[in-house]
Amino acid sequence: MSVRVYLAGPEVFLPNARKVLDKKIALTRAAGLIPVTPGDLEIPKAPTKRQFGENISAIDEQMMNSAQAIIANLTPFRGLHADTGTVFELGFMCGQGKAAFAYSNVRANHYQRVLDYYGGKVAVAPDGRLRGPDGISVEDFEMNENLMLDGGIAARGGSWVTNDAPADALYADTTAFEAILAIAARKLLAE
Amino acid sequence: MSVRVYLAGPEVFLPNARKVLDKKIALTRAAGLIPVTPGDLEIPKAPTKRQFGENISAIDEQMMNSAQAIIANLTPFRGLHADTGTVFELGFMCGQGKAAFAYSNVRANHYQRVLDYYGGKVAVAPDGRLRGPDGISVEDFEMNENLMLDGGIAARGGSWVTNDAPADALYADTTAFEAILAIAARKLLAE
Repeated sequence: MSVRVYLAGPEVFLPNARKVLDKKIALTRAAGLIPVTPGDLEIPKAPTKRQFGENISAIDEQMMNSAQAIIANLTPFRGLHADTGTVFELGFMCGQGKAAFAYSNVRANHYQRVLDYYGGKVAVAPDGRLRGPDGISVEDFEMNENLMLDGGIAARGGSWVTNDAPADALYADTTAFEAILAIAARKLLAE
Repeated sequence: MSVRVYLAGPEVFLPNARKVLDKKIALTRAAGLIPVTPGDLEIPKAPTKRQFGENISAIDEQMMNSAQAIIANLTPFRGLHADTGTVFELGFMCGQGKAAFAYSNVRANHYQRVLDYYGGKVAVAPDGRLRGPDGISVEDFEMNENLMLDGGIAARGGSWVTNDAPADALYADTTAFEAILAIAARKLLAE
């Protein structure tokens, strides 16, 4: 049996992206799954930056359509939330009813990160909801990200692993990836 | 002909969420489309916060499954990127091949926002790519968000409208929404 797994994450933006992706690819193969990653296929050249970006998107969608599952690196990226490209891809695969797994190299959950963002200045508002000084409500669902992400993963039998990686390997560390990969392999290869 | 459109966005977190959603609902009906929005259906109670969050996720997925298109409010949320819940929903609908439209109440594009995030301190790295001081590459595809979002929307015939809303109506202002709604209605009702 062969199960293709799309490996999504912001590590593609690192200076050593190729090395990190190659490590994740080797680990995925060793776990008995077939890795599908950005960079597997050549991107067609284009006359404008925008058209080139659209070509990358089309190739990535094609790879997702060819995969049966996703493992998403949802480590906070340039702020308190996961990389939007990776989140789009997680939603894309969930929309197709495919198995979804996630990891983060930051252990603090969504609620704790939002609390940090507001410097702890959250309070119960007149409507009974917890809100930041800007009036925006603070979700507390004991989840790692916005509830659509955690809910979508759980609804498809998936799960998360979180781990505090060293600051200089925030996107490259594979400790949490290896743990969720083992969980995903057990589940996907048993089906 | 009846076309159901899922209205996604972080305005659900506002103190006056109901008022903003009701305005968007009325505008969508006036445009000849059927609005589908979080809040339309009652969320089943649950014994834990997490289970309640999963119930909200399940209801929102059910509503997306019932819709033929999405209009996503991708205004930057608590940082330089769109709300991850909304991004997940955009990906979910694109994964199902449904029509996707977006708007933002901030006109600065993805590249400009990342430049601001780094205080302008980006430079061409030895590998020839533009990178921030943290080594993370700075995408410049003349797009409003990560290329998976803009690419996914364009591939399904959709588009964006952006507009600088007043600071005190960053998520509630409907100027850009009304403009993209008109574009979406023309396209969806002609099909």
